[in-house]
Amino acid sequence: MQITVYLSGEIHSDWREQIIQGIQEQELPIEILGPVTDHDSSDAVGDILGPEEDLFWKDHKSAKINSIRIKTAIEKSDIVVVKFGEKYRQWNAAFDAGYAVAKGKPIIVIHAPEHRHALKEVDASAMAVAETSGQVVEILKYITTKE
Amino acid sequence: MQITVYLSGEIHSDWREQIIQGIQEQELPIEILGPVTDHDSSDAVGDILGPEEDLFWKDHKSAKINSIRIKTAIEKSDIVVVKFGEKYRQWNAAFDAGYAVAKGKPIIVIHAPEHRHALKEVDASAMAVAETSGQVVEILKYITTKE
Amino acid sequence: MQITVYLSGEIHSDWREQIIQGIQEQELPIEILGPVTDHDSSDAVGDILGPEEDLFWKDHKSAKINSIRIKTAIEKSDIVVVKFGEKYRQWNAAFDAGYAVAKGKPIIVIHAPEHRHALKEVDASAMAVAETSGQVVEILKYITTKE
Amino acid sequence: MQITVYLSGEIHSDWREQIIQGIQEQELPIEILGPVTDHDSSDAVGDILGPEEDLFWKDHKSAKINSIRIKTAIEKSDIVVVKFGEKYRQWNAAFDAGYAVAKGKPIIVIHAPEHRHALKEVDASAMAVAETSGQVVEILKYITTKE
Amino acid sequence: MQITVYLSGEIHSDWREQIIQGIQEQELPIEILGPVTDHDSSDAVGDILGPEEDLFWKDHKSAKINSIRIKTAIEKSDIVVVKFGEKYRQWNAAFDAGYAVAKGKPIIVIHAPEHRHALKEVDASAMAVAETSGQVVEILKYITTKE
Amino acid sequence: MQITVYLSGEIHSDWREQIIQGIQEQELPIEILGPVTDHDSSDAVGDILGPEEDLFWKDHKSAKINSIRIKTAIEKSDIVVVKFGEKYRQWNAAFDAGYAVAKGKPIIVIHAPEHRHALKEVDASAMAVAETSGQVVEILKYITTKE
Amino acid sequence: MQITVYLSGEIHSDWREQIIQGIQEQELPIEILGPVTDHDSSDAVGDILGPEEDLFWKDHKSAKINSIRIKTAIEKSDIVVVKFGEKYRQWNAAFDAGYAVAKGKPIIVIHAPEHRHALKEVDASAMAVAETSGQVVEILKYITTKE
Amino acid sequence: MQITVYLSGEIHSDWREQIIQGIQEQELPIEILGPVTDHDSSDAVGDILGPEEDLFWKDHKSAKINSIRIKTAIEKSDIVVVKFGEKYRQWNAAFDAGYAVAKGKPIIVIHAPEHRHALKEVDASAMAVAETSGQVVEILKYITTKE
Repeated sequence: MQITVYLSGEIHSDWREQIIQGIQEQELPIEILGPVTDHDSSDAVGDILGPEEDLFWKDHKSAKINSIRIKTAIEKSDIVVVKFGEKYRQWNAAFDAGYAVAKGKPIIVIHAPEHRHALKEVDASAMAVAETSGQVVEILKYITTKE
Repeated sequence: MQITVYLSGEIHSDWREQIIQGIQEQELPIEILGPVTDHDSSDAVGDILGPEEDLFWKDHKSAKINSIRIKTAIEKSDIVVVKFGEKYRQWNAAFDAGYAVAKGKPIIVIHAPEHRHALKEVDASAMAVAETSGQVVEILKYITTKE
Repeated sequence: MQITVYLSGEIHSDWREQIIQGIQEQELPIEILGPVTDHDSSDAVGDILGPEEDLFWKDHKSAKINSIRIKTAIEKSDIVVVKFGEKYRQWNAAFDAGYAVAKGKPIIVIHAPEHRHALKEVDASAMAVAETSGQVVEILKYITTKE
Repeated sequence: MQITVYLSGEIHSDWREQIIQGIQEQELPIEILGPVTDHDSSDAVGDILGPEEDLFWKDHKSAKINSIRIKTAIEKSDIVVVKFGEKYRQWNAAFDAGYAVAKGKPIIVIHAPEHRHALKEVDASAMAVAETSGQVVEILKYITTKE
Repeated sequence: MQITVYLSGEIHSDWREQIIQGIQEQELPIEILGPVTDHDSSDAVGDILGPEEDLFWKDHKSAKINSIRIKTAIEKSDIVVVKFGEKYRQWNAAFDAGYAVAKGKPIIVIHAPEHRHALKEVDASAMAVAETSGQVVEILKYITTKE
Repeated sequence: MQITVYLSGEIHSDWREQIIQGIQEQELPIEILGPVTDHDSSDAVGDILGPEEDLFWKDHKSAKINSIRIKTAIEKSDIVVVKFGEKYRQWNAAFDAGYAVAKGKPIIVIHAPEHRHALKEVDASAMAVAETSGQVVEILKYITTKE
Repeated sequence: MQITVYLSGEIHSDWREQIIQGIQEQELPIEILGPVTDHDSSDAVGDILGPEEDLFWKDHKSAKINSIRIKTAIEKSDIVVVKFGEKYRQWNAAFDAGYAVAKGKPIIVIHAPEHRHALKEVDASAMAVAETSGQVVEILKYITTKE
Repeated sequence: MQITVYLSGEIHSDWREQIIQGIQEQELPIEILGPVTDHDSSDAVGDILGPEEDLFWKDHKSAKINSIRIKTAIEKSDIVVVKFGEKYRQWNAAFDAGYAVAKGKPIIVIHAPEHRHALKEVDASAMAVAETSGQVVEILKYITTKE
């Protein structure tokens, strides 16, 4: 079964590359989509529409352009993987998780064991709670190619 | 216009009571719904179905029962207000925000100015970004009763 | 049949009052919803959330709060009536018309004959094209009470 | 990410050609859809079904055939771009904008700064407010190909 | 269980009155909705919006106003009953049946045995195929009040 | 624009072949779907599942298998064309029309002028009312290829 | 929060009465809906529409009338409780569970521990897996009235 | 017409292989999807995410990963075939049937005559009730290729 998977969340580690590499090595029939992961470009994209003095509106313009990409990609995806990491509050990852669940997309969550209590509501809506990219690749392999 | 509003997020301050009091004082035609805000009861509700040794599954059972209440209440609501505070990571608040947006419910967000950058994606999907319960009451008054 | 009707568009004439009066006089089982029609209040409502120097963002904040009211009210309505008048461009009326049609709500349009060509796309999606509030009252009476 | 974009609105300038040229030059993975932009053909298409004496019904027949194209194309699109210009009232552009928003399609709006107040409700529902075709091409490039 | 039932189809016999009487006699918790059954009023309702010389457009205007009532009522209904009779072609009854099925409303069909072959596609989508109003009352009684 | 079109209704004339030929001659980017038009096969297909003595159930089994094809094909289509002819009552054509409209598919209707009054409700929901297959081909050409 | 709950499944024990009694004793704001639980009436209801010689079609007619009640009631419900017992195969209970989940209704499942492996797919889609009616009442109390 | 078909239910016989072989031999334009049919792999897949001591949670983890595959595949399918056999209770087959019906997918059921009464509710929602894989192939052939 050919599927499309959106990778949401943490942008300061190479977890996406690990999943993509795993998919390529095993030639799984999976298209991967994701947000822009270059932090500076992502924060500054609103400048295409002109500069803003007020930081709130600068963020607002950039976040809305990013949301076109994110929501379009989630809409096209069959499954959404959401990674929670140490850095920053990552409320946008949790937002994407809620958005995907309400759209009826199964979600797979990745996070370290120490965040289990803080993420219990997200985990409760997830179809799988993983700790590593490797586990996600194994699940995606099982879903798409296991007979 | 009679509306129903769900109050999501922070449970360690009296922001919900402030909104409810404001609505009552001005006799606004608004029904307020919300999660269980007694932290201990919320964490332990899964015990109704029997004890769990593993903390992950204990959390899981409780979170799922709470999700019945949360998702049913959001479904019944016209507007969802989400409050982000200082304590804890509050990923469940961001999850509710994403869930509500995907369900087509307008969201109003409350948070302090210092979280603007961290919450820019959530704010970008919000119809109003407030800092106080009082502002939310004013908006709800305008929406329901202003001629 | 008890219905709810949203009255969108022109705010500088008394067409809404005429419809409401007609409904009351004939005691039709109809709840009427509408936007805030006090132009100054509508433009300034964003100030609840603090002032804006940039006029674009000032408008933006007010328009979004108004959209909470408008979209919630359209969602609650069975039928949407949209009035196009002489003053201003009234793009928001046409926006509401498109929004209502996509939500599956039947729309009734009111406009003068000289705007027929300019409004042909809106009229093509309408279930009735009226010229007066009185005609709309007659249609609403027929829909709700004719045996 | 391969996407489909519908270009709605103004038909008396070359803004569509500018976007299409920008996409082609940069080889972006984007399919462009749009209405019939030959004004005379668009107004007369209803004649396929026979002539009409009454101008209202002549417009009506043509507008409905055009709506088959427009609504089918918006349905197939991931993003809708709407351009407001100087000529005519362009209520159909605002109608398309409302229609697209209600269908859950992100919209990008193009208009000159002097229409900001008149278009505040439309802008409030938009994910980006541009002034030129070039800005739209930059956004589409970012959305589809930025890593 | 309190339900709403729409009665579509034949307007030249008293089958609706029989169902309404049966419901009233047994005090079933059922609200009945239906189209305008006064043939002349139904055909002429478009005149509210002004006369038409061309009979096609005269019919068109009336049919659209009637469709506001019909579609609003079907939307509000839990079950749709469709009666096919001898007189006229009754394509509108079959149209309502298809419309209701696509909206996920269970339909109950009433027709004489001699139309079984002609109505086999409609019957195949129906949850019950009755011959009399009395049978429909019995089914509605069972659905709403049987313990 | 590449589209899919479902051809519903009359099976005793060559109107489908005319449309298909027109599309092929002009190389329009259109996929055509339709029901089984071999009357005997269509009536007997239920026999795959075993014979039925009772004619009602024989029809029922066949109609349900045909409905798998019809509903799947309408779901895959962008536009539905419905032809009403002289022979038989063709309630299934009107049923398909109502089904398609409720699914949000634009419908084009073909019928002779003498059926205008009987089909006024169906025509009122149609985006085009044609009399010949040739007119439908012209409309489809305009929708898919006119610049 | 006022809610509606549908009780699906086993009809040969008094588990429904236990839940209803628990709700009444604690005056919970809950409306309870359910299928007809008189086995003989349920099997024979199709006879309203006339007798059938073939047992398959006799069952078919009755099951369809019951499905009007079941699907209408699930549609009206916020939560669906499904009880699996010892007697019979109870495929209809599992069917209702799948139907409710696909409709976005949270489900609560009741079954004895020995059926855990056989019901693992149903349990995996449930928000709570209980063993007794008393546990369900406790959950419903928590969801509707806990502050 | 090219379609996708999901084969749900019994995994201890070769009914899927028979259908796939029939499709291949006749070169039908059908893509077949299905669950993992290796019982041991299916039960153990949750171990990817770490071992569980409690058998309930071990089942739970595996069932949820399987549900990602099953629900994604049903979403991608036009038609769902569900086979009920002798072995085990097969509540998951009935669950899939209910899920597919609520998603608007036509279902074809396969079971032996002795289960007719137990499966009457499932059969009542099915578009065809077959006894053999060969019958299903014949139906799929008719649906996709019969002219």
